[in-house]
Amino acid sequence: MIILVVNCGSSSLKYQVLDMTDESVLCKGNAEKIGLEDSFIGHKKDGKSWNVKVFNKTHTDAFKNVIKILLDPEMGVIKSTDEIGAIGHRVLHGGQKFACSILVDDEVMQAIEDCIPLGPLHNPANLMGIRACMEVMPGKKNVAVFDTAFHQTMAPSSYMYGLPYEYYTKYGIRKYGFHGTSHRFVSKRAAEFLGRDPEGLKLISCHIGSGASVCAIKDGKCVDTSMGLTPLEGLMMGTRCGDLDPAAITFIQKREGLDADELDTLMNKKSGLLGIGGYSDARDIHSAAEAGDEKAKLAFEMFVHRVKHYIGAYMAELNGADALIFTAGLGENDDLFREMTCKDMDYLGIVLDEEKNKGCRKEADVTGKGGKVKILILPTNEELMIARDTYEIVTGK
Amino acid sequence: MIILVVNCGSSSLKYQVLDMTDESVLCKGNAEKIGLEDSFIGHKKDGKSWNVKVFNKTHTDAFKNVIKILLDPEMGVIKSTDEIGAIGHRVLHGGQKFACSILVDDEVMQAIEDCIPLGPLHNPANLMGIRACMEVMPGKKNVAVFDTAFHQTMAPSSYMYGLPYEYYTKYGIRKYGFHGTSHRFVSKRAAEFLGRDPEGLKLISCHIGSGASVCAIKDGKCVDTSMGLTPLEGLMMGTRCGDLDPAAITFIQKREGLDADELDTLMNKKSGLLGIGGYSDARDIHSAAEAGDEKAKLAFEMFVHRVKHYIGAYMAELNGADALIFTAGLGENDDLFREMTCKDMDYLGIVLDEEKNKGCRKEADVTGKGGKVKILILPTNEELMIARDTYEIVTGK
Repeated sequence: MIILVVNCGSSSLKYQVLDMTDESVLCKGNAEKIGLEDSFIGHKKDGKSWNVKVFNKTHTDAFKNVIKILLDPEMGVIKSTDEIGAIGHRVLHGGQKFACSILVDDEVMQAIEDCIPLGPLHNPANLMGIRACMEVMPGKKNVAVFDTAFHQTMAPSSYMYGLPYEYYTKYGIRKYGFHGTSHRFVSKRAAEFLGRDPEGLKLISCHIGSGASVCAIKDGKCVDTSMGLTPLEGLMMGTRCGDLDPAAITFIQKREGLDADELDTLMNKKSGLLGIGGYSDARDIHSAAEAGDEKAKLAFEMFVHRVKHYIGAYMAELNGADALIFTAGLGENDDLFREMTCKDMDYLGIVLDEEKNKGCRKEADVTGKGGKVKILILPTNEELMIARDTYEIVTGK
Repeated sequence: MIILVVNCGSSSLKYQVLDMTDESVLCKGNAEKIGLEDSFIGHKKDGKSWNVKVFNKTHTDAFKNVIKILLDPEMGVIKSTDEIGAIGHRVLHGGQKFACSILVDDEVMQAIEDCIPLGPLHNPANLMGIRACMEVMPGKKNVAVFDTAFHQTMAPSSYMYGLPYEYYTKYGIRKYGFHGTSHRFVSKRAAEFLGRDPEGLKLISCHIGSGASVCAIKDGKCVDTSMGLTPLEGLMMGTRCGDLDPAAITFIQKREGLDADELDTLMNKKSGLLGIGGYSDARDIHSAAEAGDEKAKLAFEMFVHRVKHYIGAYMAELNGADALIFTAGLGENDDLFREMTCKDMDYLGIVLDEEKNKGCRKEADVTGKGGKVKILILPTNEELMIARDTYEIVTGK
C-alpha cells in the first residue's frame, strides 16, 4: 500500500509518499510560503530536486498542486490517486483526548478543533491540511498521528503542575509533552537494536534538534518528558528559553511592560541559543565559539548542562536506564554535543566511546568500555512512524 | 563572646542570643505583628516562655523592647548591652555582590539597598533590622549573612537562564539560589559527621520545609541549586508552585486577565501543596491523604516526585554523591517523605534503612544495606551559622 504523509504548518505543507511493502520513500517535498505570491513547492525523487513555482493561495491549492506533481510523468510516483491507500497527518496537540493515532471522522475533527487553545499555532494548520485532503481526495481514509499521544501514559504526579487544581480542570493546564512520535519511533528501534522486548526496558531518549526534549520510557511507555503544556518547557533550544524561574517572567513584565503575547514571543522566538549566543543554529554557535566568542561558548555549555540535568533526573525517576538514545538534528549529527553531554557521567553508568562517537552520523552503538548504559545514536523518522500507524489503522494489521 | 542574631521580616523581628564559648543558645524570641495594635514579643529562655504584650510601632521600637527583655532580671540573659559582642543579620538577597558574609558599613548598606528589586519583600525588612540595631546600640558591629551568598560559586552554565542575554546585564536576571546559610551549615556538618575533608566531598543537600530547595555541593562549594532568581523556582512547596512551563503563566494571564503582581501572588501564595491538596502544611496533607483525600495524596506524590527529579539531576551534574542530606522541617521530621523520596533509587546508590528512618527526628545516618550514598538526617541551624560568621568576622578568627 502507498501511504501519503502530510505535515501542515501555518504556511507550509510537507509531504512524503511511502510504499509500505518495503517502507521505502518514493518521493517527498514541501509546499512553502502558502498564501504568498512567491509560494513554491520543493520536490525530491530519486536524488533529483525540482523547484516548482506555483501560486498556492490556500492549503487546498497547495495540496491540489502536490497531487499534480505526484501524477506528473517525470516528477511523480503514481499514475492515479487510486493508488494512494491512505493519508497520515501529523497533528500537534491531542490534549487528553488522544493516547494513540486514530482514523479521522467528524468527532475526531471536532476534538482536534477543541485542542486549538492548547496548540494555537499548529492545530489550525493541521486541520487545514486534513480538510484540504478531504476536499481534493474525498473518500480517502485520513489518520491523525498526535505529537502528544505517546506521553499520555505519564502519571499525574509527573504531568500535574503545582498550580491551583482548578486550572487543570478549567483549562487543561498540565504537562502534555511533544516529539511523541519521534520518542516512540526511536524507543521501538532501540528495543530492536538491543534485541530486547520493550517490556522491562528502561530508556532515556534525547530528541535534540532546534526543538529539543528528553523522554523517560519504561516498558515502551512514556513515564516523563521535559516539554510541558507547550513545547517551551524543559531544555534550552534554538530560540526557546526552556526552564526558568516562573517569577522571571513577571519580573520582566513589570519592568518592560510586555503583554502575554509579547512574552510568549520573547520566550519562544528570541531566547535559547539565539538569545544567549546570537545564533539559533548549533552549527553557527560552534563556529562562533571556535572563533573565540564567549557568549556562543556559554550558550552551548548551558544547552549541554540542561540535557545532563534531565538525563540524571530521569535516571532517578526510572531507577536506572538500559540505554540512552540520541536522535534528531544535533542528537544524530553533533558529536561534540554528545561528547560534552556524556562527559563525567560514569557514576550513572554512562561512558562514551569517544573514538566511535567522533564524526558518527548514523545508527550506532557508541557505548564506551565499562559503560552500563548503552549509548545509541538512532536516526528518527517521524514520517515513517506516521505511515506505519496509518497503514496499521486502515488495514487493521 | 555573646552574639545577637537578628532575622527581620516585614512585620517581625526574630532574635536569638548565643554564647560563642560553647555555641549555646541563651534565649530566643520573635517580635510579631510590628506596626499593629496587637503586636507582641514571644520570648523563650531555659524552657520557659513569655508572651510580652507591647506596642511595637516600628522595627526600632521592637528592637528597643527586645533589648529591655534581654536586660530583664527574670527573662533576660545580660546585665548590660556591653556584653553583646556583635550582631549578625540574616539578609535575603545579596545579588552578585556578596559571595560571603560581611561587616556592615555604608557601602554594604547601599549594596543591600541596590538588591531590593531582587528581594522586594525581604531586603527592605532586613535593612530596617540593621538600622534599628544601629540606632538602639550605636557602635556595635553588625554583620550581614546572605541567603544567596553560598550559591555564588555556581558556574554561568548553571546560573544563566536561556533568555536574551541583555536581561542578565540590564536587570541581573539569573539563578541566585536561597537557603544558602542552611545548605552551607549542613554541608559542613556532613563533612564532620563523615570524618571527611570538604575538599573532594560531593553532597546533595535537601532543605525541605515550607520553602524547599536542593543544592549540589562539591569541595564545600555550591555547584547548582533548585531555587532561582526568586525562591519560587524548583521544588513544589507549601504554597509555591515551583517549576512549570513558563508558557503556563502567559496562558493563565490571557484567560484570567491577571496582572504580574496577581500572578506572583498566585504562584507564591496559592499554589504548591495548598493549591493541589488544600493544605500548605505537609502534616495536614498527610492526615487528609490518610483519610482518603485523593488530591492531598496527589499533592504529596508531586512534591516527592520533584525532589527525586532534582536528586537525580544533581547526581548527573556532580557525577555521583558521597552523601544525601535531609534537613529542615520535613527533611528532619517527616520519615514518610524521606522513605518515598529514597524509594527505588538504588541504581543511583541510594538505599534507605527503613527501620532506622522510621520516626527518626534527630541527627542520624539512615543509610541502608548496600547503599553507596550515605543518607544523613542533619538538623539545620541557620542562626548558629550566622552567629559563627559574625564571630569570625568581628574577631578575625
